[in-house]
This record gives sequence, C-alpha cells and structure tokens, in this order.
Amino acid sequence: MNGGEALIRGLVASGVKACFANPGTSEMHMVQAIDAVPEMRAVLCLFEGVCTGAADGYGRMREQPACTLLHLGAGLGNGIANLHNARRAATPLVNIIGEHAIHHVPFDAPLTSDIAAIAKGVSGWIRTARTAEALAGDGVQAVQAAMAANPDPVGGVSTLIVPADCAWGQGNAVEIAEVSRARLPVSDAAVTRAAAALTDDAVLIVDGNGLLEDGLAAVGRIAARSGVRIFSPTFPARVESGPGLYPINRMPYFPEQIIETLRGTRRLILAGGEAPVSFFKYRNIPSDLVPEGCEVVRLAHRHEDVSAALHALADAIGAPVAGKAVERARPAPPAGRLNTMAVANGLAASAQDDCIVCTDSGGGGAAYAVMQRAVRHSWMNLTGGSIGQGGPLAVGAAVACPGRRVYALLGDGGAGYTIQYLWTAARENLPITTVIYNNSVYGILQTEYQRIGVNDPGDKALSLFDLSRPSIDWVSLAKGYGVPGQRVTTGEELMAALAAAEAVNGPYLIEAMV
Amino acid sequence: MNGGEALIRGLVASGVKACFANPGTSEMHMVQAIDAVPEMRAVLCLFEGVCTGAADGYGRMREQPACTLLHLGAGLGNGIANLHNARRAATPLVNIIGEHAIHHVPFDAPLTSDIAAIAKGVSGWIRTARTAEALAGDGVQAVQAAMAANPDPVGGVSTLIVPADCAWGQGNAVEIAEVSRARLPVSDAAVTRAAAALTDDAVLIVDGNGLLEDGLAAVGRIAARSGVRIFSPTFPARVESGPGLYPINRMPYFPEQIIETLRGTRRLILAGGEAPVSFFKYRNIPSDLVPEGCEVVRLAHRHEDVSAALHALADAIGAPVAGKAVERARPAPPAGRLNTMAVANGLAASAQDDCIVCTDSGGGGAAYAVMQRAVRHSWMNLTGGSIGQGGPLAVGAAVACPGRRVYALLGDGGAGYTIQYLWTAARENLPITTVIYNNSVYGILQTEYQRIGVNDPGDKALSLFDLSRPSIDWVSLAKGYGVPGQRVTTGEELMAALAAAEAVNGPYLIEAMV
Repeated sequence: MNGGEALIRGLVASGVKACFANPGTSEMHMVQAIDAVPEMRAVLCLFEGVCTGAADGYGRMREQPACTLLHLGAGLGNGIANLHNARRAATPLVNIIGEHAIHHVPFDAPLTSDIAAIAKGVSGWIRTARTAEALAGDGVQAVQAAMAANPDPVGGVSTLIVPADCAWGQGNAVEIAEVSRARLPVSDAAVTRAAAALTDDAVLIVDGNGLLEDGLAAVGRIAARSGVRIFSPTFPARVESGPGLYPINRMPYFPEQIIETLRGTRRLILAGGEAPVSFFKYRNIPSDLVPEGCEVVRLAHRHEDVSAALHALADAIGAPVAGKAVERARPAPPAGRLNTMAVANGLAASAQDDCIVCTDSGGGGAAYAVMQRAVRHSWMNLTGGSIGQGGPLAVGAAVACPGRRVYALLGDGGAGYTIQYLWTAARENLPITTVIYNNSVYGILQTEYQRIGVNDPGDKALSLFDLSRPSIDWVSLAKGYGVPGQRVTTGEELMAALAAAEAVNGPYLIEAMV
Repeated sequence: MNGGEALIRGLVASGVKACFANPGTSEMHMVQAIDAVPEMRAVLCLFEGVCTGAADGYGRMREQPACTLLHLGAGLGNGIANLHNARRAATPLVNIIGEHAIHHVPFDAPLTSDIAAIAKGVSGWIRTARTAEALAGDGVQAVQAAMAANPDPVGGVSTLIVPADCAWGQGNAVEIAEVSRARLPVSDAAVTRAAAALTDDAVLIVDGNGLLEDGLAAVGRIAARSGVRIFSPTFPARVESGPGLYPINRMPYFPEQIIETLRGTRRLILAGGEAPVSFFKYRNIPSDLVPEGCEVVRLAHRHEDVSAALHALADAIGAPVAGKAVERARPAPPAGRLNTMAVANGLAASAQDDCIVCTDSGGGGAAYAVMQRAVRHSWMNLTGGSIGQGGPLAVGAAVACPGRRVYALLGDGGAGYTIQYLWTAARENLPITTVIYNNSVYGILQTEYQRIGVNDPGDKALSLFDLSRPSIDWVSLAKGYGVPGQRVTTGEELMAALAAAEAVNGPYLIEAMV
C-alpha cells in the first residue's frame, strides 16, 4: 500500500468519510487512493472555495471532520476565505494539500509556492509530510488536532501538506479508532462564580455546543429561573432552533446596537462566547463594547463543554428541569410585492421540520427569529465575515445529512463569489433550495459608506456598490450549472416556487426580487 | 486630504491609472478617495481572483502597474491564485489590501487575520502602513518596488496593507513623477561569453522583454546569422507575435518532450529565461532537464534588459540588421466537426491584426503557432500553472488597451474558477471574445492519471476528472452575467460565431464543443 492509500485509510478509520476535492497533477496518487477506499466519499467541486466551505458545513453538522483535497498553494489560496470562516466557526476540518515531491521543491517549478505560509493564518495545526511511511500517522494526528479541545479559540482546521513522493512511496497502515470531539469540563468554581453573577442586570453569552439541543435545554432552564438576558454571538456557527427549544437571540451587528443592548449591564457571563467587540472600527466608537464597570465572568470557553457547564449552572441556581421554550407559530404566507421579511415569512410558512438553513447574508439573517418559531431546524451562519460561504455550507450540510432539506439564503453580492457550488449540488443531486435575495447592490457597503459620513456619494463610488449594470440573471446561472429555478417577484410566486423546489428532490434556485 | 486620497493621488502620479476592486467595509475611505480622483479608473469585479488576474493582464500589456483594492485577508486569499500567476509573470502590480484600524486588530474581530502571512508567498514587497501621514509615500514605494529591476526572478507584485485609520487620518500629498520600469544592462563580458556559445549545438532561451517587438527583432537577427535553436519558456508571460516578427517556439510542456528537444544540446544560453525544469515531478524523470554535460551560459536575467542584450549579441556575431521573420499565412477556415486544431484555424483565419490573445488552457495553446503566422497580436499565457487566469487576464488587457479585440481561450476546467470575469466584461463593455473549449473533462488530469501508470481508473477517480454530470451550459452562464453567446459544433458555426462576436463590439462567448 502506498502512502496515499495508507493516509486515506487512516483518515477513514479516524472518522473522516467525505472528501471535497479539486485535485491537480500533484494529487493524482491521492485520487488513486480515494478510488481504492470505498468508505471515502469523493465530492468534486469546480472551485476550491466550494470545497472548503462544504467541508465547514459538513463538519458543523456532523461534529466530525471532512477533508478537502486541494492543489498546492494556489488551490489552497482559492480556499482561504472559507477556511477563515471555518476557523472562526471552530469547525473540525482536515485539509490535504498536494505539494511537489520533496526534492523537486528547490527547482522552483512554476507552481511552487510557500504552502505553509498560506495555510498559517487559517490553520490551528500544520504539517508538511516528510516520508511516505509516516504519512498515515500524520493524517491521524491532523484529525486528532482538529477534534482536540483546542485552547486556540478559533482552532479546528488542520492542514496536512503532502509532497507527491510521500503519496507514491511505500506507506504504513495505522490502527486507529474513530476520534471523538473532545470538550474539557469546567470547574465547580467557574459554575459557582457564574451562578453568583446571574442577576437581573446580567447578560449571558452562549456559544459552542451551548447552542445545540442539550445546551439550549440548559439555557431554557436558566431563563426559567433567572432574569438574565441571554444572547448568542452575532454570528454563531450553528444553532439548533425551533418549537420546543429555547429561542436564543443573536447579538446585533452594528456596535451602536450592541452598546444599546448592553446598556446597564453589570455582569457579562461568557458561556462559550466572547465579550462583544465591534466587527469593524468606526471613529468615535470603541472596539471593546463591554459597558464601563461591567464585570466579565467566564463560565466556559468554547472548547470546553459549554452545554454541561450550563446545566451545572442551572442546577446551581435551582432551575427547573423543564425550561423555557418557544411554541410553534407559523406566519401567514406572504402576498404581494416581496421584501426581505416577506421572504422570511414565506420560508417559515412552508419549511418542514428537520431542515437546515445556511446563510451568509443580511436578508437570510432576517429569517432567524421567524424560523425559530416555525420549524425545528439547524441554523448555520456566516462566521468570519467573508461572504460566499452560504452555498458551499449548504453543499456540505446536505452531504453530511442525507434526507434533510437544506436552504441556502444568499445575498446577490455574496453568491457571486462561490456560485460554482450549484454544479456540485446538481451533480450530487442534493436537496438544496437556494434563495438569492436580488437587490442588485452590495447593500451593506451602501450602508457602511453612509456611516463614514458620505451622504452624497459620487458616481464612481456608487458604481463600486452597484450590481445592476448588468443585472445578474441568477436563473440563467443556475441553468448553466444544471440547476432548475425561477425568478419570483411576489409572495404568491415565492410560495409556488418553494413548493416546486420541494417537489424536485434535488437542487432548485429561487431568485427573489427584493 | 485624508491618507486614502493622498495614496490614490500618489498612485496616479506614479503611473497607476486603473484599480480592479472588490472592496468591503474597511475600504470605504479608499472608495471615497477613488471617487475623488478622476484619473483613477475603478473597475468592479465580483470575485477577487478576477481583480488580481485583471491587474496582471493590465500590467503585462502596459508595463505599468494597475492596483487592486481587496478586503482584508479573506479578500486577498481569494486573489492569491492569480497573484501567484502574476508573480511568475513578473508583472508590475500593486495590491491595496484594507485592514482593520491599527488599534482594532488586537480585539480579534471576526474578519481579523494575518494578512501579511497570506501575502508573503505572492509578493516581492509587503508593507503594512502605520500612519496616515506616510501612506501616500508607502504607495509610491510600492509602485517603485513593482517597477524596479528586481533580482527576485519572480518579483513585481507589491502588497500594501492599509489599516482603515491610515486611510481616514490626515494624509500628506507626495510629489512624484511617473515611474518607469527599470531594467539593468548586461555586461560586455556576458555578451562575449554568449557569442562564443552560439554554436549549432546550442539552444537559446528567451524571456522577459526579449519576447516583445524589439527583442524578437534581435532574436530574428541572431537566427539569421547562427544555427542556434531558439525557444521561449513553456509559459511565457507575453509574446509579441505575427507576420514580420520572429516566430519563436515555446518549449514543450512534458519533461520527456523537453528532454527530447534538448537532446544533444551542448550549450544552453539563457536570455531572460531559466534552464528548464520539470513542471511536476515524475518517478524516474529528473527535475533538472538540462542534458548532462551541457554548459549553461547566462546572457541576461529577466530583470535585465534582455532585448538590448540580444541586440548586443546579434552585433557581436555580425548578424544582419534585418533578421528572420515569418510571412503571413492564413489557414483555411475549418469545416465540419470541431476539434482543438479546427478552433485554432478558425481563430487564425478570422482574427484581425493588433488583437490580444489570453489563454490558460491546452486547447488555447494549440492556437499559438498558427496565430503566429496569421495576424499581429500580443499573446499572453498562463504562467504559474494555476488555471482560471485567462478570462481575468483578458479583462485587464481590454482595460489596458482600448480598441483592441481580446480573445480569451479557456478550457472548461479553468473557466470554472473565475467565470465571474464575464460580468465585468459586460459592465465595462469590453471587446472580449471568449472561446470555451468544452470537452467536459479536466483533460490534463486524465492524461496525468495515465502517466502515473493507471490504465484502468475506477469510477470514483474518473468522476474527479469529469465535468459532464451535469454538463455545464456556458452560454447560459454567459447570459446570466449579461454576455451574449452561442454554442458551436462545426467549423462553419464557429466562423459565423466569430463574425457575430466581432459585430457586437462588446463581450461575446463561444462555447466550442471539441
């Protein structure tokens, strides 16, 4: 068995069962290895940012890593933006990056580059393999690092650089059991401190596995017993939502809104989350948004078992076993001209329980609260601020969770970066309903431009936010990638399109004119 | 004047007149600055890889840098692949990368990343600005570094990281004249040595400005006087081609072909080029492809004045003033079913003098020789091996050279990475005729897979090279981005489509089924 096959077998044994790939010549032995190992599912993507975003979505849903297979530094470069997002989501993920054979690197052939330098900013663990014999062991360590309780608050992405000769040389099989995600327990002292801080003028910020089903049960218990206000971060990686679960609010986006939200807060309790900072810096607004004099109390870090810590906290304050939860409430289907909220209502009116929602857009974000009341679902958010994540996330989620409908709620700006995900959705026949919010503008930039004090922007500035010349025809793009779809301008058309999407049992694109 | 405006004014004064932009919130003051400076053309791209590839195409054609405007590390990441190509092309190019305000960085807001680490592998010069006052000067130094005679054989890309507060703070205007591209002279001794080596069993490898008009005149002179065989590298950045110029051959791609080409060569003379190495490493084939016992003689490095050195060499061997050149010969228009060579003949039969050809595909490369005889044109090639360069290059070339028809000859694999360039072509009404060679496969990978000795690939391996499930409908993709086009299956249809493309005076896409 060559090193490549030993690596793939080691990855499979340690729990990596899907590879989102865009290989090149230096990865041919890895392709051969994947071909030889039936347990590794291979999913081809046309662009590496789709591979990395899909691996992120897969890892968030499964709590087990997928791997990517990318072509040297240039291929990794194309995947950087969504790896940045994955790192901010603390997703377990293993990159397999092909490299020239070890002794070929010094010849500086055209594709040679410093792969580790590119990987550095997005990887909690990096290794360049040095021998075929050790390669499978390197891969297992990559998985272990991705699944470790990483004190790096944004750890989880491992990058293994594989010189071609390590893949083609004689390898060693490794014996390894599936690796589970490690989460450290918190101390009793942390729980006691947090319990004392749970006053009516406190705010509790929950992240990590505190936002999954068991964690939210604990949050609901705490809410039933105390007057603390409870939030997730603005951009949580994954939240379980729906009737029967505690409907956690997201911290708002703009710093003025966060300041207003936290006004009067005397204690900030961190359960997997961090104290809020401004997403961007604005003149005359501080970076650190914790109110003056507010005490910050740490219950748990994100790499700790936030859910268990929250239950311990609930026990400590004598909270009931059955906590607060939201009851099902469907909005009326929208009618007439569409806007962002009408789309949200349409989704909430028609979605079925057990769906998954992926979004990296403000429009998609508007569906959060209404969806919380409508159906049980997993919500996955943009995490690192680099748009172009939602579609690839949806691909990964659909591969990770067969049988669940996935909604990708994308702005027309963000969808422009990684629209190639549609092709993979068609190829794998993934049940992804994409909604493109077509307002033909980088809306956030228009807003941000006003925020710097420009109320009368010139033509050139406006042109840099404008997506209307020409307007993008998203239905044609979908058709080009083999995905059916339609454009909708009214609530009635939206509801019909959502029903049509449900009927195809594969991908479908709805271009919503908002 | 704030730092951002001082920067843009300094860039314009030093010769940077076009900005390929995909800005975000941290770049809003740079947008305001661009808005305030009419001499800076702003070209919006939907994806950063289009920005960087376009800046590469612009810089190659103008021999002056364009700048990019990208959003933090994630935006730069999306541009890495084509910056890698630009660096291999030694193109002068200035990246302007927005960053959080200096004192905001330590707060580790979600979009924070180590931008300089990402930039390192693709930049000959990197600086993170530290004050608004110095920002314009930083920009000028970025231009000077990009235009310097850089001993880094792949230098030319400068990256200036601009914290938002450096853009919004009070700036200082700089006085600066347009920066010219510096090229160092070679020594008389180098010329004398090369002249002595110019024997019939020698090979001359020409790159850099030796492949532009004046350089090729010198090459033609040398060819008229000596029996030396003459090649460009396999992937030259830019070659001036056509009737009246010396028709230089490209070194072939596969190492076996290069070994065969160089068999019996006793002297290798490097005029801006490097001694050939294998693009990838294969077992039992050396990395270094210089024949054993062959002497390597350096006439000029790429950052030196290769053209002047070649003329000095021609003078030294008593070459005539008028050298060898090719005469015009148009192929017959193709008829019947298309293949790669039929497309090449169709292009050569119909193209007009003074066009520009950009390609990053094997199919496109097949047009090289026949186009050399047909029309005067500038040929721009994939340089760093990262496909997805041809379309963006065409955008940059069209912006750099108004009035010239640009052909983008793209494989269906490569076009998948950066197809968003079509939108910019439509928006700017650029006369770009795109030809997509649709064979629904990553053809090079199929070949390379056989080369590693697999003659009976499994389904999963085949699926990783396959682009036919679903087949991509490139005409629909073009329509989605506002570009008209048609699919052609015969030579007759191709000729009609090429005529239709010529008629629209804007972008047009031809999907050639080969």
